[in-house]
This record gives sequence, C-alpha cells and structure tokens, in this order.
Amino acid sequence: MANPSLLILAGDGIGPEVMAEVKKIIGWFDAKRGIRFDVSEDLVGGAAYDVHGTPLHDSTMAKAQEVDAVLLGAVGGPKYDKLDFSVKPERGLLRLRKEMDLFSNLRPAQCFDALADFSSLKREVVAGLDIVIVRELTSGVYFGEPRGIFTEGNERVGINTQRYTESEIARVARSAFELARRRNNKVCSMEKANVMESGILWREVVQEVHDKEYPDVELSHMYADAGAMQLCRWPKQFDVIVTDNLFGDLLSDAAAMLTGSLGMLPSASLGAPMANGRPKALYEPVHGSAPDIAGQGKANPIACILSFAMALRYSFDMGAEADRLEKAVEKVLADGVRTADLMGPEGGVPVSTSGMGDAVIAAL
Amino acid sequence: MANPSLLILAGDGIGPEVMAEVKKIIGWFDAKRGIRFDVSEDLVGGAAYDVHGTPLHDSTMAKAQEVDAVLLGAVGGPKYDKLDFSVKPERGLLRLRKEMDLFSNLRPAQCFDALADFSSLKREVVAGLDIVIVRELTSGVYFGEPRGIFTEGNERVGINTQRYTESEIARVARSAFELARRRNNKVCSMEKANVMESGILWREVVQEVHDKEYPDVELSHMYADAGAMQLCRWPKQFDVIVTDNLFGDLLSDAAAMLTGSLGMLPSASLGAPMANGRPKALYEPVHGSAPDIAGQGKANPIACILSFAMALRYSFDMGAEADRLEKAVEKVLADGVRTADLMGPEGGVPVSTSGMGDAVIAAL
Ligand SMILES: CC(C)[C@H](C(=O)O)[C@@H](O)C(=O)O
Ligand SMILES: CC(C)[C@H](C(=O)O)[C@@H](O)C(=O)O
Repeated sequence: MANPSLLILAGDGIGPEVMAEVKKIIGWFDAKRGIRFDVSEDLVGGAAYDVHGTPLHDSTMAKAQEVDAVLLGAVGGPKYDKLDFSVKPERGLLRLRKEMDLFSNLRPAQCFDALADFSSLKREVVAGLDIVIVRELTSGVYFGEPRGIFTEGNERVGINTQRYTESEIARVARSAFELARRRNNKVCSMEKANVMESGILWREVVQEVHDKEYPDVELSHMYADAGAMQLCRWPKQFDVIVTDNLFGDLLSDAAAMLTGSLGMLPSASLGAPMANGRPKALYEPVHGSAPDIAGQGKANPIACILSFAMALRYSFDMGAEADRLEKAVEKVLADGVRTADLMGPEGGVPVSTSGMGDAVIAAL
Repeated sequence: MANPSLLILAGDGIGPEVMAEVKKIIGWFDAKRGIRFDVSEDLVGGAAYDVHGTPLHDSTMAKAQEVDAVLLGAVGGPKYDKLDFSVKPERGLLRLRKEMDLFSNLRPAQCFDALADFSSLKREVVAGLDIVIVRELTSGVYFGEPRGIFTEGNERVGINTQRYTESEIARVARSAFELARRRNNKVCSMEKANVMESGILWREVVQEVHDKEYPDVELSHMYADAGAMQLCRWPKQFDVIVTDNLFGDLLSDAAAMLTGSLGMLPSASLGAPMANGRPKALYEPVHGSAPDIAGQGKANPIACILSFAMALRYSFDMGAEADRLEKAVEKVLADGVRTADLMGPEGGVPVSTSGMGDAVIAAL
C-alpha cells in the first residue's frame, strides 16, 4: 500500500518556522515508528503571490485535491495589505476551503492545565475547559453573491451576501451532532434568528436534523450576541457549538483567546469522504501569521504540531499516535518549557521555536 | 418654554420593573430639583403585540418622532418566539431605530470599581476599564435587501444582505471621532476587510473621514475576529471602537459581559439634530428582557437609571444633573447595596429592584 500523502503549505509570517518543527516530528515518526508519509511542499498566500502572482497556483490546488491531507501554516502580512482583494493572501486559503469543500471546521478551545493562569480570565472560569466550535466554512457571507463595491448615484456601496441553503446547514449540523456523540453529547447552535432570515432557516434546519437523526443529543439554540457573552462569562456551560462562517470566525477567536492558549490551538477543516474513505481535510493552527514576530525564532510551534496530531487522528486513523504526540506536548508544558508567548510571571524554561520542537521530540 | 418631552416605552420582561425605578427618579428631579419632563408612556415589543397585533403601533412611532427623547426598557420573550418574523417584539425596536434614523449607538463598557472582582476576567484586566463601542445601528445586514427565505430547486435558501453606503459609514465614523475627541482621542475601526468587500469600503471611508476631518485623532484598523480576541485579552488598549451593526452587536455584548457589569450598562442611540438642535435619541439598557427573572423584583434597575442619566447629558444638556445621578449610583455601589446579579462572594446588602431604586434616591 502507498504511504499516506501529506501536502505542506507553510505560507507566510511564522508559518514556515512553526512548520519546520512539524517536519522534524514527521521525521521522528518515520525514523522511530516506521510511519511514513509521502510529503510534498508548496506555496500559499503571500509566498505564492510573490512567485506566481496569485495566492494559490492552480497546480497547488490540484495537488491539494489529490493528497490525503493538507497541513497549512498561516497566510497574510502587512506587505500584502495594499494588494487587490482578488489576490490577497487570504484568497488562497479561502479557495482551498471552497474548492476542497471543507464545510466543517473544528476549532477546539481547550485550556491546558499548565497554562490555566495564563488566561485573562480567572482560573476557575477556564481551568479544564474543553469545548469545540464547529464553524461552517464554505458558505455564508464569505462566499455569497452578489458581492463587491458598486457605484450608486454619486456614492460607493459595499455589498456582501449572507446565503445558506438547507443542505449546507444540514451537513454541518450533522458533523456537530456526530462530534457531540463522541464527547459530552451537547450541541448549542448560534445565529441571529431574531433579526436575520438566514438565521431563522439555520435554526429550523438544525432542529429538524436533530429531531430526525440525533434525538439523543441535547440541543439548544442561542443568539450569537448572547453566545459571545456566555463564552466570556462561563464557557464551561458548552460542549459543542455549531455556527455559521462569520459568527464562527469571531466566536472561535474569542474562545481561543479566553483559554490563554492561543499559540497552542489546532484546527481541522473537513469535507466529504473521498474514494478511500478519508475525509478531504486541511489542518492549520488557529493563530495567524504574526508578522510582528516572524523570523525571530519566537513563535510557538505547538498549535501547528497539534494540528498534525489532529491529522493523525482524523485523516490517518492513528489515534494512538495522536495521543502519543499530544501527551508529549502536555509533558513539555508541565515541565515548564516555554516559548515567549507562554512565559508568565511564574517563569519557566525559555526556549525558541526550534527549542520547543526539540523538547517535544525528546518527550516523544 | 415647554418642558422637555420624554416617551417611555417599558416593553417586555423586566422592562416595566426597571422602568418603574426610573419613573421614581424622574419624580425626584421634579420634586427636589424643579426639573420637569412631559412624560408620556406607550407600548413596544410583545406588550404592544398583545394589544395591537403589532410590536409598534403607528401612533407610537409618530409620538417617538416628536419627543425630545425616548427611554426604552427591553423587548422580547419566549412567549413570542413562535410569532412570524414580521411581528416579533424585536421588529418594534428595529423600526424605532430605522425610522428615527438613529445611526450611532454608543455602548460604554465600563467597569465599576466596586464590581471589579465580579467579572470573569482578572481584576487587573478590567479594573478601571472605560471604553465605548460606537455601533452603526440603521444599516448593514439588519436592514439590507434582498432578504428572506426562498425556495431554489427543491430546497430552501436563507438570504440576508450586508450593505453599506459611503455616507452611512462616514456619518457613524464622524460620531466616533467626535466622541474620541472628548475622551482619549483614539479610535479603532473593526471590520473583515480581508474577506468582505463591504469591509474594504468601511475601512477606506473611515480612513478618508479621518484624514480629511479628524487628522488629530489616533486611528487604527483591526479585523473584527482579532478585535474580539483583543477585547478578551486586554480591553484597556481601546478608547473608542467603531464598527458595523452586526459586529457591534456581538462585540459590545462581549465587552459588556467582560466588565462584570452587564446589569449596569446604559446605551444611547443618536440620530441627526432636530429643529431644536437636540439629536433624535433613544436610550436603553444594554441588557435584554431577562424573562427568566421577570416579575420577581430581582432585576437590577441601574442600567436603565444610567440610561436616563445619558439622556440628561446627551439630549437635555444637563451634564451636572447627569453627574449627580451617576455619583449617586456609584455611592450606592460603594456602600455595598446589591441586587441579586451583583451579589458576589464578598456579600453586601441585598435589595430588590425597588430597593435599589430607593437607595439611589436616598443617595441623591
Ligand atoms: C485569514 C482569514 C481569511 C480567516 C477567516 O476569516 O476565516 C481567519 O481569520 C480564520 O479564522 O481562519
Ligand atoms: C433585541 C435585538 C434585536 C437587538 C439587536 O440585535 O440589535 C439586541 O441584541 C441589541 O443589541 O440591542
């Protein structure tokens, strides 16, 4: 049987640095555990624009469609701020999500024990927190038409369209219910059904899917503004949250920050199963390209390493190996090994990006 | 000269209870300070629907257009959840905002000293916090057309339209810059210009208004997801935040919750100046109708009382009287007087809704 295939798109800013550590870990799995991946690498975002004049070359898109999983670093940076919308680094990532049809974006907001004091929230509010936000990733206002800047009379008008079909809502709802069954069996769906018709349809369809297919899962609905509040007040009330593309963008970033573990959090974007039974999949850290610290060896590679662990689990059915890697990360944290972003008043052993990668390998 | 006129719309849930305390305070200003308002009262939300079959009767709308200021309690409740979208309680409030053209919604997120330990955030993160979110309130996805639930092929599609014209963006930007000049002279504008063209226009217009009319104010731009993060991480970095209707809805609720003072926060929604020079204005608490505690004398009337203080300041040019009322509230809090929502582990003097109103009057 062929080795499972992995496409690495390191991207911009700290992307290449954190990805370098993942490559070391992939090497370790090869050398020590005989687990081999066919790894290819390519460009995305500003890095691709610099070479090809587009943030995602067609040949890269084609490769992404063929591999078993894509691992992405980060995209974007001030250098590209003035570029036309159509070739901004973000468009490369959005094209991958859309054309691979990665409709279900799993964003864990998890508080690592060793870092509970690191949150801006009180320890008791976040310690032990472990929730997942399931964000719809291929539709909504990110992709709806019409869109653009038009002239009307003597002024400009900016337009975007929030648009959800029943089947788009149903499939992401299913993925949230499936996930909840493997966790604490609770889903909270968030929208603004009190002011948006797309939210009314969202609420109705989630409820229908629940009643017909997942009556055993506990389902509740919340307006997204109240959801933002409750995430800040007592996030442990949630297990799985399911929401649309735009609300998911804001809510998952807020939730990630609350845990104090922003540089630690991975994400998985999953699509429909391929011929080999594996879902189309892209894994990436929740954090961005952090241009302010890029190239200084300060970045925390753990989010990217844990994204690889998610790939082991969701794409390659290697749950035991994923556990092994996650345990290694926990041990390193418990030992007080700290990149700059994790350095709190209680101190620790300061390490660079590659020092953190080495520590994880030692713990493996 | 005629007395200034005030229309009171108590609305649903805890609305009437908290408004009763404001009425006592209006009475105090009359009796003790010779400050008289022509007060009229009417129905809004579910309360109006129950009587008129609509959440805002045309005659109420007409009155709101004529008075110097509207004071609103809260709208909505589970009793009305199954109503058709067009007559939901929220539509009454949205109609007021739209037809009075109240484009600038000022939402302070302020942490009261006596309550700094009450936040889910650490004391040092919120103590002394005093920022204002200026939310655009009459446009964007709340009002854009087309909207609705349609059938396409064999499935339903939910559609809403995010739509901003240059002049809509410019006028709310101006109100944010004006406010900043009276505060710490810093504005941060939030959108998703990296994925939405309406966000690109937003960013451009805010920058243009700044460069032409307010070059003395410090302006920065932030993506709304990063903004949600930064609000949770270190909210004191902000002074005035300006953002659109939908982002403003989520961000201001999150910010309000962070302060630990949700039951304490007022808001002002302001429009263009009327013939008498006063802006069209509606004042309301940031909190909602809280149906779970309605009718039990548990609600905290302070947000509604401070909304009246904002009316004194912004509509009636009675800054000194507004200060007097705000100081009275501070004193009551410092004295440990606490409605149920403010009762922390350190205890205090428990009072009912009307007990809190009485305490404020005593402090006046
Ligand atoms: C980079 C950007 C296009 C992206 C988004 O808005 O989805 C990011 O914020 C994210 O959450 O993955
Ligand atoms: C009640 C509702 C329509 C309203 C809104 O979404 O604007 C509320 O959440 C608010 O923030 O004032």
